[in-house]
Amino acid sequence: MAAYTIGIDFGTLSGRAVLVDVHSGEEKASSAFDYPHAVMDRALPPACGSVPLPMDWALEHPQDYLDVLTHTIPDVLRQSGVKAEEVIGVAVDFTASTLLPVRRDGTPLCFLPEYRENPHAWVKLWKHHAAQHLANRLTEAAQQRGEPWLRQYGGRVSSEWQTPKIWQVIEEAPEIYAAADAFIEATDWIVLQLTGVWSRAAGAAGYKGLWQGGKYPSEDFFASLDPRLARYTEEKFAYPLVQLGERVGGVTEAMAAATGLLPGTAVAAGNVDAHVTVPALGIERTGAMLAIMGTSTCHVLFDREEHAVRGMCGVVDGGVYPGYYGYEAGQSCVGDHFAWFIENCLPASYVEDAKRQGKNIYAYLREKADRLFPGESGLLALDWWNGNRSVLVDVDLCGMMLGMTLQTRPEEIYRALIEATAYGTRRIVEAFREGGVRVGEFYASGGISQKDPMTMQIYADVLGMPVRIAGTAQGPALGSAIFAAVAAGKEAGGYDDIFAAARAMGKVQDTVYTPIPERAAVYERLYKEYLTLHDYFGRGENDVMKHLRQIRRETLDTKA
Amino acid sequence: MAAYTIGIDFGTLSGRAVLVDVHSGEEKASSAFDYPHAVMDRALPPACGSVPLPMDWALEHPQDYLDVLTHTIPDVLRQSGVKAEEVIGVAVDFTASTLLPVRRDGTPLCFLPEYRENPHAWVKLWKHHAAQHLANRLTEAAQQRGEPWLRQYGGRVSSEWQTPKIWQVIEEAPEIYAAADAFIEATDWIVLQLTGVWSRAAGAAGYKGLWQGGKYPSEDFFASLDPRLARYTEEKFAYPLVQLGERVGGVTEAMAAATGLLPGTAVAAGNVDAHVTVPALGIERTGAMLAIMGTSTCHVLFDREEHAVRGMCGVVDGGVYPGYYGYEAGQSCVGDHFAWFIENCLPASYVEDAKRQGKNIYAYLREKADRLFPGESGLLALDWWNGNRSVLVDVDLCGMMLGMTLQTRPEEIYRALIEATAYGTRRIVEAFREGGVRVGEFYASGGISQKDPMTMQIYADVLGMPVRIAGTAQGPALGSAIFAAVAAGKEAGGYDDIFAAARAMGKVQDTVYTPIPERAAVYERLYKEYLTLHDYFGRGENDVMKHLRQIRRETLDTKA
Repeated sequence: MAAYTIGIDFGTLSGRAVLVDVHSGEEKASSAFDYPHAVMDRALPPACGSVPLPMDWALEHPQDYLDVLTHTIPDVLRQSGVKAEEVIGVAVDFTASTLLPVRRDGTPLCFLPEYRENPHAWVKLWKHHAAQHLANRLTEAAQQRGEPWLRQYGGRVSSEWQTPKIWQVIEEAPEIYAAADAFIEATDWIVLQLTGVWSRAAGAAGYKGLWQGGKYPSEDFFASLDPRLARYTEEKFAYPLVQLGERVGGVTEAMAAATGLLPGTAVAAGNVDAHVTVPALGIERTGAMLAIMGTSTCHVLFDREEHAVRGMCGVVDGGVYPGYYGYEAGQSCVGDHFAWFIENCLPASYVEDAKRQGKNIYAYLREKADRLFPGESGLLALDWWNGNRSVLVDVDLCGMMLGMTLQTRPEEIYRALIEATAYGTRRIVEAFREGGVRVGEFYASGGISQKDPMTMQIYADVLGMPVRIAGTAQGPALGSAIFAAVAAGKEAGGYDDIFAAARAMGKVQDTVYTPIPERAAVYERLYKEYLTLHDYFGRGENDVMKHLRQIRRETLDTKA
Repeated sequence: MAAYTIGIDFGTLSGRAVLVDVHSGEEKASSAFDYPHAVMDRALPPACGSVPLPMDWALEHPQDYLDVLTHTIPDVLRQSGVKAEEVIGVAVDFTASTLLPVRRDGTPLCFLPEYRENPHAWVKLWKHHAAQHLANRLTEAAQQRGEPWLRQYGGRVSSEWQTPKIWQVIEEAPEIYAAADAFIEATDWIVLQLTGVWSRAAGAAGYKGLWQGGKYPSEDFFASLDPRLARYTEEKFAYPLVQLGERVGGVTEAMAAATGLLPGTAVAAGNVDAHVTVPALGIERTGAMLAIMGTSTCHVLFDREEHAVRGMCGVVDGGVYPGYYGYEAGQSCVGDHFAWFIENCLPASYVEDAKRQGKNIYAYLREKADRLFPGESGLLALDWWNGNRSVLVDVDLCGMMLGMTLQTRPEEIYRALIEATAYGTRRIVEAFREGGVRVGEFYASGGISQKDPMTMQIYADVLGMPVRIAGTAQGPALGSAIFAAVAAGKEAGGYDDIFAAARAMGKVQDTVYTPIPERAAVYERLYKEYLTLHDYFGRGENDVMKHLRQIRRETLDTKA
């Protein structure tokens, strides 16, 4: 009997749905929808007073997420010709921590006229970094008190996580904190919208919410920081925790009408966009690192044992697959890095020449960069244009490039930026090995892995490991579809076990990028130089990057 | 009685003459002539076999220099209506060391059919860098032997100077060395063409020819390098040394006929284009640094005492003004830096927008950059895209920039490059102060000083000193005209003293760029960060720049 699931991946700028055959993993249809409000980092929408936003803010509009559901689900059904009764399950994944304050009925505070002009009433996107000072205080306090959970987060709390984001609301907008009956991860909020059931999925709670081994850090710890923070998890997250792949509920009548699904269709626990991708490549062995390469890169792997890895983002029991310790690390700036270059640094002569040759500008530039041999440009960069997530966990770090001469050409700079991200990945692989976690295989998914063979070859050469590539361009959405098949269960035509589902539905390409020894040898030397600079600028020997940030902040304050 | 002089400045690509009123300094006419053969860095002219030139070569055609005389002198006479008998003196300045092998009668070897297909028979331009390996050997030998003159050159011999250039001829074309009755600086060769008199002007001999305190380095030193070099100064520079402002001779009958000047018109000693500019601004006090800002920047000042300044280019008794120690330092990459950015890093969107607004791209970019406050971009660069001339004297250093984020805009990078050159200048000012030479005032001339108020304000803010600007766009040519008035002498209507001439004829603009305290305060902090990085990368703590160069060299060798 035919059976299908739908996975929906909510990214930074758009949502993408795929409709997948549960037996073969074949993607019958896919559909994308760009968020009409995109990322709001300058001001709220005009309808909400165009209230200006301070530096480092990043908000989103929850209506955009609902629009993804009502556009993409009907679209994949129509495109594929699959009937609603053949769809046995739905699952979603999201960026995280992407967090919003809501009413008891799930209504976002920003939908209410009395709050919509308050920036704190909106969705704080994962890359909202304005609570960095609070994240720093959290880290310092946890270090001083020797909080045991800190090592499960590589030794630092990130400003991208839930606690600093909530603390910022308490500090800057206590009226919003008071008005919120709950805070909820966007992934759980979508599940709530689909099913009417409150749930807190284990992955986001663990990696982004300090939830470890069935509990949060102690009330005593939070109270030591700020009495108002003491009981925030009980006050604002008083709804049940669910494991990945678990069925949270069925699609409501209202949502069925809006999407074309049948009421009662199984909806899985929410998930984090990176972690959900692991089964999409059919990865079922420990020791295999998956890099999900998009605007940023997330590194995920799992192991039977729990280890403290310095500078990882976190280790969570059941965070990737139930029954295993799931590890996460990340690089804050990968595709964004290259896009920044294209937008800000590409000379008119190149754009014209590409046009003359009828080439896409990325392809044109890649062709030039691909002719360069490792070391030929004499350039070396630190990939910190958006801070460093792993292994330094420091958003105040920033980009660096050296080696420029009057002969330096744009394609050399472009290639150096790509190489820098590869060095950053290698540093992360080595951190896991240093921490006792085996990394024996390397997989990549995401847009870059699909479209950019030069970059993937550079990664293989820098890592000194073969790189295998996802067999789908929709890794997270396929991963969600796989979890949806588990939520639906074997009786409904799905699976009882995530590994069985991954084996059947996940896939990699035949192409493998294998290290080329003479190139790997040059990168070995360049990586040593990278490491020296990485530690010099990243570990406090020269805090120039922080000083510049401080000066910048003061300057902007003076100017304002 | 009306009296005028003509100053002619021979640059890298053209010669420019001005005709100046000796009493007021008013420029009555100016005329420029582009060298028809420009810089030959690929091949000799077709008439000379189109012989190809190796990497780092840069030659010029002496006929081009003669054409400057016969085009521009008649032109300024005609334009101004000044009569030949009212012209009391002529002087020229030149890039240096720009050197040519000649016969006893002054004929360049490259004019002779038997030599013209030999590249070594031609004029080696200042930026002919193909003798770098020999310059390195000269420096090392001088260091090992503890040669006392080395400290008068900041500790290093440059490949742009006379000795490496001549040594290269001995090594690669001994037949040319043998056929040359003399080698002569282009500035002295023009004086020879005008007057028929051989002279070796003190400035070029000192700064570019290792002539110090009336003598060259010892025969013993040169012999230790290469026996053929032992007596080269006696063999090839056996003609009299003259002080700046001295009258070398009068215009010959033949040259009078060719230029429209009267025979016997006073011709001054030759000079170096940077140094000759000092009187053009009326600078007559010690402690005033003049920066001549073009593709690169040259810093000149003079003092009553001789000091060893670490990292300067040289100190020469009478090198700027007779009776004073003239100091030179430099930055290898200033205008070139900004041009590199415009050519390689400026996005198409900016070029289009500038076009739409009908603006020159420099003006467009400057407008955006000028809106930025110091420190606002968070960027900091080391201005070493073309190595570091002063104070590190190291061509193997290269560019560095840090502080980039995904919000970094092109105008921020552009401004950071400008600021980097200002920090580099401040480092030079401080090196002179550390060496015991007072720097109490700062003057600027050259294209950037005339056209770019933003840059000059940045310099004032970074230096913490008012910056005064040349009152002429033709600084070197006016400087030459001032020295011509001294060569003519008081009886002929000129001056007996260069200071009196400078006072009467030199000029600065009314505009003074004065440090803005709140900006200077931010730059003070940024400059401290610059210094830390300057020393870290420039003084051996982290030789990553050299390692990258080495890897690059090996890579290019492998690829070739």
